[in-house]
Amino acid sequence: MTPPFTYDGRHLLADLYGCPVLDDLALVEDALRAAAVAAGASVIGVHLHHFGPGHGVTGIALLAESHISIHTWPEHGYAAIDIFLCGERHDPAAALAVLDDRLAPDCIRVTMVLRGGEIDSDMDIDSRVD
Amino acid sequence: MTPPFTYDGRHLLADLYGCPVLDDLALVEDALRAAAVAAGASVIGVHLHHFGPGHGVTGIALLAESHISIHTWPEHGYAAIDIFLCGERHDPAAALAVLDDRLAPDCIRVTMVLRGGEIDSDMDIDSRVD
Repeated sequence: MTPPFTYDGRHLLADLYGCPVLDDLALVEDALRAAAVAAGASVIGVHLHHFGPGHGVTGIALLAESHISIHTWPEHGYAAIDIFLCGERHDPAAALAVLDDRLAPDCIRVTMVLRGGEIDSDMDIDSRVD
Repeated sequence: MTPPFTYDGRHLLADLYGCPVLDDLALVEDALRAAAVAAGASVIGVHLHHFGPGHGVTGIALLAESHISIHTWPEHGYAAIDIFLCGERHDPAAALAVLDDRLAPDCIRVTMVLRGGEIDSDMDIDSRVD
């Protein structure tokens, strides 16, 4: 049995609908970097890939505090974002507010998942995958 | 109002507890690449960072179908993974099974979030962030 371990991780998943521009690599990179700054996070590196003119962008800001990722489908005005941060000093909502401002969606669906919470003996049995 | 858009994205979040080795960059990279193969995904690039001997590894496999990320805390035997894939052909559970095999946790907590589902007019109001 692993000793209980509590890790204060917050993982915010955001679906952005109705974004007017999602095929601009520089816009996406700037948005990722600004979101990291707003969250008070430290950027280790930003890695992006453009699937071609008019197509989507996929990318990640690797952070000392975990990551912010984005995948875009400009043909649908849709962007999938996840913001994973640890520690109370770092604010996923502040990062999302920047991405909302830069990508200008009509609406956002947000799911927040707490990561690394305390485990117990029941979980050892119930949550095994294999 | 944005037209309804359904995107078949599955985002699997996994907390792995009791992993014996989490400070080995090569092990983590091999696990990420093998997980992507198992899921039937196409790797665009793998980006990793090691926080130093005995410390954690943070990294991402950027995929044509989104991403697999990992962040490890070897001092706690804890790894936070997320596997985000689109399309029915790509199987997050197959990727997780590989990571389970390579990282050998005592237990895993899994949360699955469906991404990019259909939106409706209620969501436009209820899910705004700002």
